[in-house]
Amino acid sequence: MVSFHEAQQILLGNTPAAASECCSLEAATGRVLRASVLADRDFPAYDRVMMDGYALRFSDWQAGERSFQICGAAPAGQAAMVLSSTFGSCVEVMTGAPCPLTADCILPVEDVCGKAPGGVTFAHSAAPIAGRYLHRAGSDAAAGEVLLPAGTLLGSREIGVAASCGAASLLVSCLPKIAIIATGDELIPVDQVPEVYQIRQSNGHSIAAALRRAGFAPQHLGVLSDDAEIARPILQGLLAAHDWLILTGAVSQGPRDFVPALLKALSCKKLFHGVAHRPGKPVGCWLGPSGQIIVALPGNPVSALTGIHTLVLPALIRASGATPPLARQIEINASNQQLPEFTRHLPVTLLPDGTALPAATGNSGDFIGLLKSDGFVTLPPRGHLSSIYSRYPFTLWL
Amino acid sequence: MVSFHEAQQILLGNTPAAASECCSLEAATGRVLRASVLADRDFPAYDRVMMDGYALRFSDWQAGERSFQICGAAPAGQAAMVLSSTFGSCVEVMTGAPCPLTADCILPVEDVCGKAPGGVTFAHSAAPIAGRYLHRAGSDAAAGEVLLPAGTLLGSREIGVAASCGAASLLVSCLPKIAIIATGDELIPVDQVPEVYQIRQSNGHSIAAALRRAGFAPQHLGVLSDDAEIARPILQGLLAAHDWLILTGAVSQGPRDFVPALLKALSCKKLFHGVAHRPGKPVGCWLGPSGQIIVALPGNPVSALTGIHTLVLPALIRASGATPPLARQIEINASNQQLPEFTRHLPVTLLPDGTALPAATGNSGDFIGLLKSDGFVTLPPRGHLSSIYSRYPFTLWL
Repeated sequence: MVSFHEAQQILLGNTPAAASECCSLEAATGRVLRASVLADRDFPAYDRVMMDGYALRFSDWQAGERSFQICGAAPAGQAAMVLSSTFGSCVEVMTGAPCPLTADCILPVEDVCGKAPGGVTFAHSAAPIAGRYLHRAGSDAAAGEVLLPAGTLLGSREIGVAASCGAASLLVSCLPKIAIIATGDELIPVDQVPEVYQIRQSNGHSIAAALRRAGFAPQHLGVLSDDAEIARPILQGLLAAHDWLILTGAVSQGPRDFVPALLKALSCKKLFHGVAHRPGKPVGCWLGPSGQIIVALPGNPVSALTGIHTLVLPALIRASGATPPLARQIEINASNQQLPEFTRHLPVTLLPDGTALPAATGNSGDFIGLLKSDGFVTLPPRGHLSSIYSRYPFTLWL
Repeated sequence: MVSFHEAQQILLGNTPAAASECCSLEAATGRVLRASVLADRDFPAYDRVMMDGYALRFSDWQAGERSFQICGAAPAGQAAMVLSSTFGSCVEVMTGAPCPLTADCILPVEDVCGKAPGGVTFAHSAAPIAGRYLHRAGSDAAAGEVLLPAGTLLGSREIGVAASCGAASLLVSCLPKIAIIATGDELIPVDQVPEVYQIRQSNGHSIAAALRRAGFAPQHLGVLSDDAEIARPILQGLLAAHDWLILTGAVSQGPRDFVPALLKALSCKKLFHGVAHRPGKPVGCWLGPSGQIIVALPGNPVSALTGIHTLVLPALIRASGATPPLARQIEINASNQQLPEFTRHLPVTLLPDGTALPAATGNSGDFIGLLKSDGFVTLPPRGHLSSIYSRYPFTLWL
């Protein structure tokens, strides 16, 4: 049995980096960038006017001029005009337009107190400053600067920045091919009516949902027979076609827990089997003959879903080239919740004040009780604690 | 001009509820449930064994028996056996199996200290309790109980619970038809090389990305001409085919801000135009002739993306029948950040201790600076404050 921290590290260390592929900007939301996006020009590329108003020379204003001759209009989307060198000249400008050359000052329309044909007079209360309402060329970023480094998760801001740089397609991490399959002779498909001693398969569905919400595209393959002879060729076929195989059930030490022996027979190398955390102690991880990762989770739904959040997703995210976001730390009174030698993933309910309370969930077979929680905090084994009230990393249920 | 709170309420009050449709369980992840899912049976449906071990009568143990006769094996997936009424009988049981009838006690395999053909002896240190390691029928939920009420967002746990209840298809909210279109004569498509006075269109891309990350499926339609005569039939066609129209640019009070007049000409009813918040004061909202919602956001990328997070998404989520999640409250020193009459959405960087710092972002045209922040806190207008250090609702950038 390994510690939870060791299990995470072993899994991270053995997960191969995802390949990369080209992806259109439209389809890149939520993907992980693999080649940096550089500023292809200065941002902004020109001295950009930030207010509707009038561009003029501040020196003319300083010389006392308040009535200016309008010698043109500069809309957005046209080349920069040149402000007439005549003293007291101005150009009407729109937000987004390039500032007329030799102008260095924008007076917004709100400062106008009088208009005559071809001219405009500004209020004496106006207090322009040279450069005000001008978004200077290159002030956000210089051409050539790395704006989005490789490893960036492409959210709404990043997609906008990539668009600005002309990245109509992007190099992103391939999505790994993930198969999910449940075992258990008591399991039947969702659309069948169970006998009293049967239950509908739910783990595969919830695991697939969690992975989809994290941006992956798993293949959910239903239920595998508990009979190793039937299961063997199926698992072999799945291994040949996938990068990841996620199993639930039959992974413990009982006489019918056939998964560990079957994986060994399929030339998979055990990385660990048994993790000192709860729920989910029986979880195991194997390396397939072509470097596939096989994670066998317990069949208890709470254990299985917790294992996805704590072990599988961090490894999948790291393999994509991204850095998993720093966990939110939540304050909780965990004095009665710690275990001596085990890491504990404790379901909690968030409170409006930002702290959390342990949720009154049931045993690890109680999936319904889990609905009362918002996520879980991960408590270290007792002895690692500095105090009873403390902050622990929080994971939101996907 | 309306307050930020008023703008939110007006938009929520005018957004029609989404229609509903049937959706397969496999495709329902991230959707909003519209018809409650009830427990179709007790959960668990039978007294479920929680450990590999032996089922026996606690009264036999209490009578001092430690060596039991094994009179059968109960795997998962078969009907409950009946434990022999002979004193000192037990049944070998697997995790997930129905508890043999008349047995009330599970001794895990770890408690076995000796085995003989057909018999098993338990350690004197074993301390069984009646009912221990038994997950009692109906203890999680009773048949008929509402497990997932209408309005539930279908995450991984909810999909698992729906699967358990046999919900192979679910009634969910339809995704609204959303069109996104940017205006601005300075804008060119991403795949073109701009003149120095042009910029590539990015707002539509980032808005589409934000909506996709929130589970919507918007249609992104590129750039609309600033010429009202060209724009008019295009907008009319978009209104006829969509529930939501999201525009950026040309919504302020300037001479080329043609959007408000054009929407009026298209028989759209103004709900508000101008909101006392920053960034994004010029934002407006109109109601189309068939109840469509039109939100016209400023062209500044920071204003546009903030408006999506603060106004558009809460209304879209509410219209889907879901309750927007309670905002996380974050402590921040906002003493220098407040505005007298305006709500302020202030970009912040999260710190490991759970507090946040204002991010050093640029002006509302600086999209690149926004990358340095994790999200924003929403500060009320000054005067509503109880103290300088306080907690404010935090929104993570999508």
